[in-house]
Amino acid sequence: MITIYEQHELKKWVLQQKGDKRSIGFVPTMGYLHEGHLSLIKKAKEENDAVIVSIFVNPLQFGPNEDFDRYPRDIERDSRLAQEAGADLLFHPSVEVMYPFEPAVTVKVNRRADVLCGSSRIGHFDGVATVVAKLFHLTEPSRAYFGLKDAQQVAVIEAMTGDLNFPVEIVPCDTVREQDGLAKSSRNVFLTDEEREEAKVIYASLTEVKDLLLSGVNPLSAKEKLEELLKKKLTGTVDYAEILSYPELKEPSSDSTRLIAAAAVKYSKARLIDNVLIELTPDGKKEVENHV
Amino acid sequence: MITIYEQHELKKWVLQQKGDKRSIGFVPTMGYLHEGHLSLIKKAKEENDAVIVSIFVNPLQFGPNEDFDRYPRDIERDSRLAQEAGADLLFHPSVEVMYPFEPAVTVKVNRRADVLCGSSRIGHFDGVATVVAKLFHLTEPSRAYFGLKDAQQVAVIEAMTGDLNFPVEIVPCDTVREQDGLAKSSRNVFLTDEEREEAKVIYASLTEVKDLLLSGVNPLSAKEKLEELLKKKLTGTVDYAEILSYPELKEPSSDSTRLIAAAAVKYSKARLIDNVLIELTPDGKKEVENHV
Repeated sequence: MITIYEQHELKKWVLQQKGDKRSIGFVPTMGYLHEGHLSLIKKAKEENDAVIVSIFVNPLQFGPNEDFDRYPRDIERDSRLAQEAGADLLFHPSVEVMYPFEPAVTVKVNRRADVLCGSSRIGHFDGVATVVAKLFHLTEPSRAYFGLKDAQQVAVIEAMTGDLNFPVEIVPCDTVREQDGLAKSSRNVFLTDEEREEAKVIYASLTEVKDLLLSGVNPLSAKEKLEELLKKKLTGTVDYAEILSYPELKEPSSDSTRLIAAAAVKYSKARLIDNVLIELTPDGKKEVENHV
Repeated sequence: MITIYEQHELKKWVLQQKGDKRSIGFVPTMGYLHEGHLSLIKKAKEENDAVIVSIFVNPLQFGPNEDFDRYPRDIERDSRLAQEAGADLLFHPSVEVMYPFEPAVTVKVNRRADVLCGSSRIGHFDGVATVVAKLFHLTEPSRAYFGLKDAQQVAVIEAMTGDLNFPVEIVPCDTVREQDGLAKSSRNVFLTDEEREEAKVIYASLTEVKDLLLSGVNPLSAKEKLEELLKKKLTGTVDYAEILSYPELKEPSSDSTRLIAAAAVKYSKARLIDNVLIELTPDGKKEVENHV
């Protein structure tokens, strides 16, 4: 695996791969890699000739009071893990390389961004979409891999790719979890032992509510139940607990065939998010495990 | 030349060119081709293995009271002219093909878009940037050709390409003019004989002001002179007459090395725009004819 810091070096490598007709799989990350990221890299390796992993903590997607400065970083460990998982190139640009000046032109997310994480993180998904557009243009991948732990991000990136006709296939990948169900996240390191222990309740509550929805309970009642479960069992603050259609992220209607149950919980030093997807079929209701 | 109406057929053709390692030159147009467009196609043909011309009157860049519906169209004539100029593929999608539904994700132009044509055409450059981003992704060109008659559009597309790292080289091309200096434009057909006759004053006034700037007159005085010349000699309404830095499109400062003198004039059925670029060198002042 080679590590590259500059755009022009990356472009050179990409052109070489294209010239050799090698397909490129791309895994954009903010680093501090965990098994979720590694599963994306492994999948990319299976499906493409070459794999690019990017590690870039993107300031554009952090609000002024968010954790940009203290987002965890460990490039040496990340580098080793990415290589072991099968990455051929690690792109690790500085903020100055990605944003030599304030961009005059950005990507704007007009739908799917005003609910869930978007309602408290204003401009977050514009920042995500802008950096992903830049990275897509720099890496020119055939396929790009995103974890469904950030299901709203997947919905936004799929909308961007479709609406702007990016020549990239978006591959959503299942959430990787700890043994007790907690979704793997770079921010889990910020939890105290007590918080880490109780945090398993988030996924347990989501699956409980999923079962209710599959048994025919209506989305509004399910949402109330989700809120109740989380508030009763957690010391963290429930930022949101929602049942929405997926990937539109609207209030569910009787036509909705796919729902997302999603929650965000704030602890003193970490905000955790998680979700499950539920597929409702016309003849009875059927679950899919996190598949878009 | 083949004509294609659907995205998937275009993608197939583009992939074939890429597979054969043929470079693609792209000329996006709204049709009703004139010699300005044809000069872009000819230049694209000289510099690339294959040339795609698109003809699409983009509703996203027209305001509610603008001339989308009556923008002139003549696809048969355009088709013949594009072929004669050297196009290999004509992409002529319907509105439904380009926008099957209202896009959830668009491109946003945060600078360079609030002056000149942008100040009266709110959202115009967001619409231009969005459709050009879509077309770039659909045609995957090595180079894309734009006429400097729309110098602000060139400035916006160059900002978009740089800020979002599109793997495309933008090639700005000189404005093509009638014998009396009037810039070629699809909208010139809407002028009455009298309007057409007096419209030559626009370019004459711009060049007069260019000479003043090159002789050392300050931008503010030059702008006043431009307004005075246009208002005195034209029956049309002067929408704007401006001297700005280029391509930043800000008020000129003592550091500005390149300026644009630009004007827009409204007639009953057409709004005409034109500009000249002026390069100021540290040791004396020197003109460039419409080169970015």
